Amino acid sequence: MVKMISIYNLFPMFLIALTAPLLALSTNYEAIAAAQGIANAKPGVRHVPERNIPIPTADVSPEEQTLIGAPYLPVFNVHPKNSDEWKKLIAEVAANVIAELPEIKKRLGVTVTPTTIAGVKAYIVAPTTIPEKNKNRLLVHVHGGGYVFFPGEAGLREAVLMAGFGGYKIISIDYRMPPDFPYPAALDDAMAVWKEAVTMASPKNMAIFGTSTGGAMTLAMILRAKNENLPLPAAIASNTPWADLADIGDSYKTNEWVDNILVTWNGWLGDAAKLYAGNHDMKDPYLSPIYGNFHGFPPTILTAGTRDLFLSNTVRTHRKLRRAGVEADLNVYEGQSHAQFGDDLDAPETKEAFSDIANFFDKHLGK
Amino acid sequence: MVKMISIYNLFPMFLIALTAPLLALSTNYEAIAAAQGIANAKPGVRHVPERNIPIPTADVSPEEQTLIGAPYLPVFNVHPKNSDEWKKLIAEVAANVIAELPEIKKRLGVTVTPTTIAGVKAYIVAPTTIPEKNKNRLLVHVHGGGYVFFPGEAGLREAVLMAGFGGYKIISIDYRMPPDFPYPAALDDAMAVWKEAVTMASPKNMAIFGTSTGGAMTLAMILRAKNENLPLPAAIASNTPWADLADIGDSYKTNEWVDNILVTWNGWLGDAAKLYAGNHDMKDPYLSPIYGNFHGFPPTILTAGTRDLFLSNTVRTHRKLRRAGVEADLNVYEGQSHAQFGDDLDAPETKEAFSDIANFFDKHLGK
Repeated sequence: MVKMISIYNLFPMFLIALTAPLLALSTNYEAIAAAQGIANAKPGVRHVPERNIPIPTADVSPEEQTLIGAPYLPVFNVHPKNSDEWKKLIAEVAANVIAELPEIKKRLGVTVTPTTIAGVKAYIVAPTTIPEKNKNRLLVHVHGGGYVFFPGEAGLREAVLMAGFGGYKIISIDYRMPPDFPYPAALDDAMAVWKEAVTMASPKNMAIFGTSTGGAMTLAMILRAKNENLPLPAAIASNTPWADLADIGDSYKTNEWVDNILVTWNGWLGDAAKLYAGNHDMKDPYLSPIYGNFHGFPPTILTAGTRDLFLSNTVRTHRKLRRAGVEADLNVYEGQSHAQFGDDLDAPETKEAFSDIANFFDKHLGK
Repeated sequence: MVKMISIYNLFPMFLIALTAPLLALSTNYEAIAAAQGIANAKPGVRHVPERNIPIPTADVSPEEQTLIGAPYLPVFNVHPKNSDEWKKLIAEVAANVIAELPEIKKRLGVTVTPTTIAGVKAYIVAPTTIPEKNKNRLLVHVHGGGYVFFPGEAGLREAVLMAGFGGYKIISIDYRMPPDFPYPAALDDAMAVWKEAVTMASPKNMAIFGTSTGGAMTLAMILRAKNENLPLPAAIASNTPWADLADIGDSYKTNEWVDNILVTWNGWLGDAAKLYAGNHDMKDPYLSPIYGNFHGFPPTILTAGTRDLFLSNTVRTHRKLRRAGVEADLNVYEGQSHAQFGDDLDAPETKEAFSDIANFFDKHLGK
């Protein structure tokens, strides 16, 4: 069996020094504790010393240990200077993702059919055989990628995993993105598809799901559907959502340099936020749904990791949903950085996370 | 109204330097990113630079911001050298906790009556008026404190909060502790009370709850009740449980020096673990319940914080419960260190956390 390549193989390798300097970190606990005690003896900022953090092993599969211990994504601190540089980077990343898609589709028995819905490019993603209970159900998928990455087939990976592990038929939206199409193009496309999709199945048999940017767009779609009096789905999955587009939220700081996928808001991520927002206020709930009104939301499942740069985005969303009286289910994976629960098809955590979401949908969707 | 004093006032102040040195931290992002990129360009340990982390403000109440930004608990790195030093420390801490108890009882309208159950010291904690739906319900509380702190009335604070916010009648167990009574005395006492308690109410109308050490003992009590064919409660709350007594779990490292309550396993906490375990294997499920079999557990609610040293203890327990088919509800509070959701009676997060647990019990307990 071909070992699935990890997300680390999906990004172009930028020139980085391959030999890390020997780190002269103090291992004298008493000296560190004494210095820390002094540095944190007054109220205010938390001072944290330089550290080496080992790979966790307890209750973490060997496959996830490999992901958790992998180097930073080399792309983390790339800052494209203009549209052409963005497009070149986006194309390189996309090519690498698309290259592994046939193998994933084959292993999970999933077919992909390009289509156009309400003038928006999309794909129908479905298992070869749809289980009886899912015959009248339909999911809508919004992919991640910081509003810049994963156009076209490159955005399908997660939809293929959900179709394979959950047995659902899925519309995956290939929404327009920066640099050519900043906000509101992506959300406009997603809403155009949603308006059409609710005529293809009963909304009470439907769910919307996505991860990261897709998780935030899932929330924004519900906010907008509420405001526009459109039908709501029966459930949503908002995985480690980019709920606050700005660098607001504690884990942007506590997990900065700890998360090996996003690493820091100040890398490409913050550039992408500004590119997407354009002249719009990042605190507009359609851009940062954490600032929206969550009353009346459908039951929501959220998934993140303890090292996730978006852990705070996730738990802030979870608590705000709870405070609004919404049934909200939180799952946090040990040691994982951003969205690593989906990065290796062979990791038991991948099957577990997608099965948990599928079971949550199964509980809430009509048939 | 008297402002409730925080947990910071509950510990004796040890001699610490009051003037932190000016930290010459680099704020040059590009320099840090470049160095970090190099240090994390190969698989293995995660290198994290020295940092100052600000107090989070979004979706965090002013009261919790004060707790999150408070200095390290000065006791964090105290290492008593013998039984007498432990007892002196334990007594000092207890006196401070007990001093504020009358005010908490008064504000929440809760009464406390000392008793003895099956030869074990305990307290009956109850609101002045018990709501009709809770008349036949009974909770059992096991307090926290690393198996060393909070004997006698000092262990009652959390039970008073639950009686006040939840309207429940509660048995709070004053179990024996080190240095005089290492494992299994604490668990033996808790089980003796449980065996008697299930004759005082129907087990399907009962729940067990606790935080930290009390959260771990709650899990261990279920493991032991299963093994001894005793009745199980209808639900449990295991808040930020000390599920792994050894320093195993990712947040023992990622949140080391970040959590301002426990700070590090290598302080008093690890000493307490060794004192409690004595000659017993720390991986014995009765000491570290994460190594137990969770099949057949009652519905469980877990609560922790993103900066919590026990975040991994909590999410490992949550996922293991889910994998065993148990209904398990996870709540993680933004920016909070260990168990800060209960540290300030005036913080809305305190009422929210205890109300969430009470509602979870209300959903699962018979009447």
